[in-house]
Amino acid sequence: MDHSGTVALAVSTVIFALGSQPDTGRVGLRLPLVRRIREPYEGQWALPGGPLRADEDLAEAARRNLRDTTALTPRYLEQLYAFGTVDRSPDDRVVSIVYWALAESAETTSGEHDNVRWFEADHLPTLAFDHATIVDYALWRLRTKIEYSRIAHAFLGETFTLTQLREVHEAVLGKPLDPANFRRMIESSDAVIPTDLRLTGTSHRPPRLYRYNRDFAFADRGPLTLS
Amino acid sequence: MDHSGTVALAVSTVIFALGSQPDTGRVGLRLPLVRRIREPYEGQWALPGGPLRADEDLAEAARRNLRDTTALTPRYLEQLYAFGTVDRSPDDRVVSIVYWALAESAETTSGEHDNVRWFEADHLPTLAFDHATIVDYALWRLRTKIEYSRIAHAFLGETFTLTQLREVHEAVLGKPLDPANFRRMIESSDAVIPTDLRLTGTSHRPPRLYRYNRDFAFADRGPLTLS
Repeated sequence: MDHSGTVALAVSTVIFALGSQPDTGRVGLRLPLVRRIREPYEGQWALPGGPLRADEDLAEAARRNLRDTTALTPRYLEQLYAFGTVDRSPDDRVVSIVYWALAESAETTSGEHDNVRWFEADHLPTLAFDHATIVDYALWRLRTKIEYSRIAHAFLGETFTLTQLREVHEAVLGKPLDPANFRRMIESSDAVIPTDLRLTGTSHRPPRLYRYNRDFAFADRGPLTLS
Repeated sequence: MDHSGTVALAVSTVIFALGSQPDTGRVGLRLPLVRRIREPYEGQWALPGGPLRADEDLAEAARRNLRDTTALTPRYLEQLYAFGTVDRSPDDRVVSIVYWALAESAETTSGEHDNVRWFEADHLPTLAFDHATIVDYALWRLRTKIEYSRIAHAFLGETFTLTQLREVHEAVLGKPLDPANFRRMIESSDAVIPTDLRLTGTSHRPPRLYRYNRDFAFADRGPLTLS
């Protein structure tokens, strides 16, 4: 590698949505990948991304990745990390500023064609560059944040039952949760507030609907506003 | 500004150390700034930093900033955030990947000369670019992290008294803490472990020495190792 040259800057985005596996119907985390059509790593799958345009903010570039890849709008978008080891790209020096996004759950085949495909987050193909490390870190950040922020809200409507909320947590964490323990954990925090509404048309004892407490941080980022 | 060109990449570092105010002797957070010797913002104070070299990892560049500015070695170093709004620099498009570092407490005049000076973190001069925002965010990150990680250890020796630990927390948070409440809070967490040792040569009832629990995360960064 030529170390005398300049450093290129790219923005990539890890996009998560909830969706069901075509074969089992089980709901889990899915993410879209793009097949590379040039070297290096031609033919391998990679995160959506590309060079930062000079007239584009970082988060704008991440939104563009998401739109170009999936035609979806993010429900949540946050900077993850800047990855910049000297040898992460074989030919050039590239620093990638990576965002992670949560998108609506319904359309996890959105934008799919030959070179864009949604995969189960826990069963990915071999990825180009250091993108497997990047996805691992994004998964860790999402799974950590769901426990202390109202990030799960990105996958839910304005109101939801505790069962729906638990199912989102189960899909994100990739494991079943004990319903009684989950209910106790949620009710002892102030993240979620019961409403006077109940889910209609379901049974003779329709479950109560809850909403998120807007005083509770969406995700604590201190003095940085979401941009 | 010319938006058709390329994007430049810089690395800057917010370096914190504990030191006493020359006039009052009060111990608080201090950080070194560099006076700019060229436009834009010539003559104003700015964070140490500069262009990323093509053969240098991001954290290496941050360590170099720290060494060149203060001749100190970091006790802790972590990536803070990438700042990249289009108009943050008046002439060029510059994205700055910012690290924050904790350095040893003793030498907060280290490296001082006409163009490098240590300031109290809560009483900074007007800063160039968006560096005031960056310092605010770094202060928030440090003050949040001291409550749930063993980051205070960077300012202490291997063993310390609860009073010494409280004084570090007070200096970082910039406010006095109730000694009894602080003792209860620390003793109810598993972050700090009592040793069989006591501080010698102080009084007829020398205080007990504690050490950090190494099972407790220095700062939880999941699958990313400190690099």
